[in-house]
Amino acid sequence: MKFDEAYSGNVFIKSHPNYEESKAVIYGMPMDWTVSFRPGSRFGPARIREVSLGLEEYSPYVDKHLEEVKYFDAGDIPLVFGNPQKSLDMIEEFVDKVYQDGKFPLGLGGEHLVTWGILQAVKKHHNDFVLIHIDAHADLREQYEGEPLSHSTPIRKACDLIGAKNVYSFGIRSGMREEFQFARESGMYMAKFEVANPLREVLPTLKGRKAYVTIDIDVLDPAHAPGTGTAEAGGITSKELLEAITLISNSELEVIGADLVEVAPAYDPTEQTQIAASKFIREILLGWVK
Amino acid sequence: MKFDEAYSGNVFIKSHPNYEESKAVIYGMPMDWTVSFRPGSRFGPARIREVSLGLEEYSPYVDKHLEEVKYFDAGDIPLVFGNPQKSLDMIEEFVDKVYQDGKFPLGLGGEHLVTWGILQAVKKHHNDFVLIHIDAHADLREQYEGEPLSHSTPIRKACDLIGAKNVYSFGIRSGMREEFQFARESGMYMAKFEVANPLREVLPTLKGRKAYVTIDIDVLDPAHAPGTGTAEAGGITSKELLEAITLISNSELEVIGADLVEVAPAYDPTEQTQIAASKFIREILLGWVK
Amino acid sequence: MKFDEAYSGNVFIKSHPNYEESKAVIYGMPMDWTVSFRPGSRFGPARIREVSLGLEEYSPYVDKHLEEVKYFDAGDIPLVFGNPQKSLDMIEEFVDKVYQDGKFPLGLGGEHLVTWGILQAVKKHHNDFVLIHIDAHADLREQYEGEPLSHSTPIRKACDLIGAKNVYSFGIRSGMREEFQFARESGMYMAKFEVANPLREVLPTLKGRKAYVTIDIDVLDPAHAPGTGTAEAGGITSKELLEAITLISNSELEVIGADLVEVAPAYDPTEQTQIAASKFIREILLGWVK
Amino acid sequence: MKFDEAYSGNVFIKSHPNYEESKAVIYGMPMDWTVSFRPGSRFGPARIREVSLGLEEYSPYVDKHLEEVKYFDAGDIPLVFGNPQKSLDMIEEFVDKVYQDGKFPLGLGGEHLVTWGILQAVKKHHNDFVLIHIDAHADLREQYEGEPLSHSTPIRKACDLIGAKNVYSFGIRSGMREEFQFARESGMYMAKFEVANPLREVLPTLKGRKAYVTIDIDVLDPAHAPGTGTAEAGGITSKELLEAITLISNSELEVIGADLVEVAPAYDPTEQTQIAASKFIREILLGWVK
Amino acid sequence: MKFDEAYSGNVFIKSHPNYEESKAVIYGMPMDWTVSFRPGSRFGPARIREVSLGLEEYSPYVDKHLEEVKYFDAGDIPLVFGNPQKSLDMIEEFVDKVYQDGKFPLGLGGEHLVTWGILQAVKKHHNDFVLIHIDAHADLREQYEGEPLSHSTPIRKACDLIGAKNVYSFGIRSGMREEFQFARESGMYMAKFEVANPLREVLPTLKGRKAYVTIDIDVLDPAHAPGTGTAEAGGITSKELLEAITLISNSELEVIGADLVEVAPAYDPTEQTQIAASKFIREILLGWVK
Amino acid sequence: MKFDEAYSGNVFIKSHPNYEESKAVIYGMPMDWTVSFRPGSRFGPARIREVSLGLEEYSPYVDKHLEEVKYFDAGDIPLVFGNPQKSLDMIEEFVDKVYQDGKFPLGLGGEHLVTWGILQAVKKHHNDFVLIHIDAHADLREQYEGEPLSHSTPIRKACDLIGAKNVYSFGIRSGMREEFQFARESGMYMAKFEVANPLREVLPTLKGRKAYVTIDIDVLDPAHAPGTGTAEAGGITSKELLEAITLISNSELEVIGADLVEVAPAYDPTEQTQIAASKFIREILLGWVK
Repeated sequence: MKFDEAYSGNVFIKSHPNYEESKAVIYGMPMDWTVSFRPGSRFGPARIREVSLGLEEYSPYVDKHLEEVKYFDAGDIPLVFGNPQKSLDMIEEFVDKVYQDGKFPLGLGGEHLVTWGILQAVKKHHNDFVLIHIDAHADLREQYEGEPLSHSTPIRKACDLIGAKNVYSFGIRSGMREEFQFARESGMYMAKFEVANPLREVLPTLKGRKAYVTIDIDVLDPAHAPGTGTAEAGGITSKELLEAITLISNSELEVIGADLVEVAPAYDPTEQTQIAASKFIREILLGWVK
Repeated sequence: MKFDEAYSGNVFIKSHPNYEESKAVIYGMPMDWTVSFRPGSRFGPARIREVSLGLEEYSPYVDKHLEEVKYFDAGDIPLVFGNPQKSLDMIEEFVDKVYQDGKFPLGLGGEHLVTWGILQAVKKHHNDFVLIHIDAHADLREQYEGEPLSHSTPIRKACDLIGAKNVYSFGIRSGMREEFQFARESGMYMAKFEVANPLREVLPTLKGRKAYVTIDIDVLDPAHAPGTGTAEAGGITSKELLEAITLISNSELEVIGADLVEVAPAYDPTEQTQIAASKFIREILLGWVK
Repeated sequence: MKFDEAYSGNVFIKSHPNYEESKAVIYGMPMDWTVSFRPGSRFGPARIREVSLGLEEYSPYVDKHLEEVKYFDAGDIPLVFGNPQKSLDMIEEFVDKVYQDGKFPLGLGGEHLVTWGILQAVKKHHNDFVLIHIDAHADLREQYEGEPLSHSTPIRKACDLIGAKNVYSFGIRSGMREEFQFARESGMYMAKFEVANPLREVLPTLKGRKAYVTIDIDVLDPAHAPGTGTAEAGGITSKELLEAITLISNSELEVIGADLVEVAPAYDPTEQTQIAASKFIREILLGWVK
Repeated sequence: MKFDEAYSGNVFIKSHPNYEESKAVIYGMPMDWTVSFRPGSRFGPARIREVSLGLEEYSPYVDKHLEEVKYFDAGDIPLVFGNPQKSLDMIEEFVDKVYQDGKFPLGLGGEHLVTWGILQAVKKHHNDFVLIHIDAHADLREQYEGEPLSHSTPIRKACDLIGAKNVYSFGIRSGMREEFQFARESGMYMAKFEVANPLREVLPTLKGRKAYVTIDIDVLDPAHAPGTGTAEAGGITSKELLEAITLISNSELEVIGADLVEVAPAYDPTEQTQIAASKFIREILLGWVK
Repeated sequence: MKFDEAYSGNVFIKSHPNYEESKAVIYGMPMDWTVSFRPGSRFGPARIREVSLGLEEYSPYVDKHLEEVKYFDAGDIPLVFGNPQKSLDMIEEFVDKVYQDGKFPLGLGGEHLVTWGILQAVKKHHNDFVLIHIDAHADLREQYEGEPLSHSTPIRKACDLIGAKNVYSFGIRSGMREEFQFARESGMYMAKFEVANPLREVLPTLKGRKAYVTIDIDVLDPAHAPGTGTAEAGGITSKELLEAITLISNSELEVIGADLVEVAPAYDPTEQTQIAASKFIREILLGWVK
Repeated sequence: MKFDEAYSGNVFIKSHPNYEESKAVIYGMPMDWTVSFRPGSRFGPARIREVSLGLEEYSPYVDKHLEEVKYFDAGDIPLVFGNPQKSLDMIEEFVDKVYQDGKFPLGLGGEHLVTWGILQAVKKHHNDFVLIHIDAHADLREQYEGEPLSHSTPIRKACDLIGAKNVYSFGIRSGMREEFQFARESGMYMAKFEVANPLREVLPTLKGRKAYVTIDIDVLDPAHAPGTGTAEAGGITSKELLEAITLISNSELEVIGADLVEVAPAYDPTEQTQIAASKFIREILLGWVK
């Protein structure tokens, strides 16, 4: 008996033990220091892994099995409490390395600001790509109460980095007046309230392009994902989000990386938020990692 | 520094500090003494205010901002524990004063019986109005186990007060056989199970009329509002209730007052019930207070 | 005053006090020893009864009242902790007796393996019947990690017992690749993801046949039934399950027995899972017991 | 198989099925309509019974087994929601009957006001008795915000009924200034903060007397009994309350009845409050019913 | 009726409506951005106020009533999310103003770092004072993972500010080896594990001195205060902390200000942590504000 | 960057990455299939590890630091759902290997039956040792409702294996009459209700002997450890259990292995049970592994 084989601890189910042989890398970003309402998403990645134990390894949505894709679970990046800038630097460095090694980064948040760290690394390796952004919140603020590094700003920063016309937001139902104005005037794409239908329309227009996809769990109605910091009534069902993931899987986009953020387990004693999140991760692994 | 300006305590976000200058008045009715199943709605108003901190002040549903409407948060009426009649008298007196001052009363419950206190004050100031009632329960009982003052009776009392033909109920999916019989025979309007579709049909017929609107949070499915005393499976989504509120905003009804009742936070550790309720209050302020 | 009349304790509301005079028998199976993820369904039956107190006795779905059907609540069968085979034997013996006495067995689980005990008794009394199976999981495994008695196997066993062509599964969204393959090849019927629509198509083809119906509460989305061991995102609403129950009520099937399983209250502090379950039981009593 | 024997439902463990043959009668009083802070004790009796399943039937504290005492569980009295006076009348009538039949009444609350109903029945059957009152709160108010029927008044009423000098309070750590003044001046006995030590001193002075004992679960520190309406920090441990019960068991008091009140399960997801309460009930049955 | 009198909203019970006439000022510091384990203390102040509704206004511990001391509740200081330095500056400015106006500052946290902001204001107005520090954690780190502004550092900073020999810590049961070494070598006083007994010894030696007192709720055992970020088993009871507060009340110290920090309600669905905290605040108001 | 160094996932803090170089081995036994009341201890080991993140690495109780002892965290043994005998065989095999490699086994449960698997391995390697058993329950049953493999039987089996006179139980407050009788007559040692005081008396008599120590978390009062299947009021504090661990550390016993069992996180939303457990594990590592 090799002891490391006896280990059934907290990694995403079916993770491959070897980094080099893996095509995708799951990594956690336990950071929640800039959230404005209910903190706690730092525990999201660990709990998503924990409940993955309850998942089937086969998906009847795409008729695939997790053994068909090799992925390594790198655990959580040991971020620095209360220091957003250092944390973002560590995230960028980590994702940079994953791209250098030719692998697909699949990040677990943590607050949405983490995506800003990731995107800077994506940009180094991919000159031309679109950002698919699925979220309840526009996240288009320039700053939050004076702070430019805030969980309300990453998509605005993304517009600056890759050009607003390369940013596609879906499901948005909350934001400041100025954010919706920016969405209308900047050239970016924004679908309010809905995800699957507008995605069905947009995807054919993006045929052949590279895409990074960021999903904020609060795009779901709080009925489906109560465990998040800034729950917002009036959202979509988990059924619709599963459909959206499958639409992307079946599209002609080349997905080059993804993250799922803002799972905050302390607000959901039913655990259904992380249970849903772990299923989305399974579908992403099966559908987007080619 | 003025100390009262430092205060960021428990009022609904963006409340105006001055009663006289305000057009609407938010007030709480922390009463739950006649409920037949799970008590606790006395804490509803305080928790709806608490989580309003997490709301955006702008609504993409009606493209308006809370700074466009002035409202005062009068806090909770200090009702008398266990005495329904005295409590109803206090509510009636309070709402009477609000109408005398020419303002829009927006009440937070508490159990649904509070609406009976309110309606008696409405009737003093408005001779001809319809009641829009959105709820899972018919609330048409004449008494509950011998008690005429019960959370199951307010709509029946309303029928007596303003005439059954002026009462419009939506979303009803629970009640006694006698209540549904009364609904069919009395001349009132009742839409079972659904809210937005029947409202879309009825609203044009009410063009130009005054309306008081009472919403019981349990019209939502327990998935969307578990924090309520008498949760009833098979309800509508928070998306549909948001749509209903917007339909009324865009109608030619003159809304003269409203309440949202039966939020009981103790049964919802996720806080999603009050989070949804605070969003409905925002939409009501933006759409119904003219 | 007769003391037994004072009793308002933990039986399903409106239960008839006399076994002999009753047409249906409610019984609990507090068993959860083979579950693979989150245990606790042993407390399901007691909590479904507890919250039935909050139900109306009248149903606006089928316009019937519980006083129109006599049913006895036999309490929970005192199963043996940790011993699946003995427990199944006790369940079989119990249901056998119910059928001998010409009554309708309505079982409350407990894990889904209990249905295997029930079906063996059904088979003794009814030579030709179909199984209607409403569930998130296929439950078609031959064994689970070497154990043939597992909560993942009852429907496979049912196929062996009554023939795969007599088994109709609805709402399935999770399982091993082998289970879906078996479903395709064995001659059984399986509707993936949906319940009401496929049921509407299938029911006319079963006209006049006898049917035993087993419902796993996890066919609901976790938003509607978080209190279950193996919650699975992407499920149906409680509205759709109510519709499905009504479709069967209005069909020309002869329902000969039913169970509702996998309610695990510890994971749902909101109690909405058992609240929904108690409503389904009311609808089953009103619609299926003829 | 007799079906009533199969029943393992919600009665206190080892309850005797026959009222006539029993020496003691357990009964629930699901009433909480006058509580001033957190309601919910109406569900206390049912949940105390539910968790009694986890108790051993033998007590190492007094070396006795529940099979040595016969007691009947009469279930809950079907009290009238929101009507304190009618509810008290029903309680009085119930306890009156229990005394007429020569049995020991053991009541489960419900709010503390229920004890006022009980004591009026006790007084009819026992001319001379002392009241042992174990509680965090003095409960000596003449009224609460104008209401003479309140959960803050039962001990004051008891002083009027049986004479203050026959009332012995233990563990009191909360009340109005006037209540503590009344305690000092009226001739009653009050031990502040502690229970076991003062009881050890007082019990010998009561040798041979009859005593009714009422225990409010909130005498325990919230650490030991969080599931109660008016939790009050600084209380005793469950170890001390067990010691107090044993002191009374071993004393030369003749206990003529008892109640345990104010268990409100909704505030204690750990269930430890009812788990402790069920153990206290076991010790009372073993030690006080002679 | 004056509308502001109708207000029974979220201020500490019996707060005086007028700042100028008050001797003490309660203020909240909703900050938790440097915590290393479980965040959420930003909601502590609001919930301590909320449950103060359940408190008696009279204390049998010191035989005093809240009407004997006038205090103003200034609400929460609107701190800046994720920016420790700006937040500390705001706190310092606020407390500075309170001292300028000759009042007693009574702060509610928030994480323990807030005390560093407060102490800098205290120092401006009081040249010579001791710090009484009651806590599970030494909080003597120089930095935490490189950050000098951390919830683990405020007492070390206090040693630098007022001299280690003026710092008295009680109840400490957790820290780095270096912190305990510093405690031994720096000349400060540290009592490990216990609070009341060492306080009883130390207080006479401080006769006539001024003292600022900071209490971290986690000095309590998690049994008594589960709602805190860094719960640490093996702590004191709430009874012992009440005793400690009374010892200070009865001592000849001149208390010049106080705070109670680290109440994080999200981890305590029983609400007992804030319930206990509100009682401590009552005792502080009654005993320390002279 | 080496990826395994980036890992901050779910192992006990400060675990050594290399099995061979370690002196002790932490391993989990996620088994709860024979529990008679509330299941869920299968998730105990994972959650104890999770919250170890909040621990300090230094202990002021014994003035030691975790870097002074090397231990490997082997994760959970992948036990077989619902099969007690196979699971016990796997545990025995695992511990056997740990002893062959000359290391100290430190097990995390899981239900108490796991200790029976462990002890059979201990016996192979150590002919003469005593069992120190700290628990609320005697666990001396010969069988439980006919099942010899039950969480109520391991200490009885231990008596058979190593002789009753080598078994020392502490803190026992629950069991059948027959178990206490066996304890008196078999020659084993049993201290009822208390742990630290009797341990202080017994330890000197065991000088120089080898000892295996098994701790059931339910020896703590539910106030300190609500997250356990069979919570039993009237227990010891976490302070007393810390004292007991230190007494053993400072004794002249040679501890040859230990386990801590019955942590069931689902019943404790405050997480205090696993937080306390992780501290006990730290103290065991620092004090018992020599």
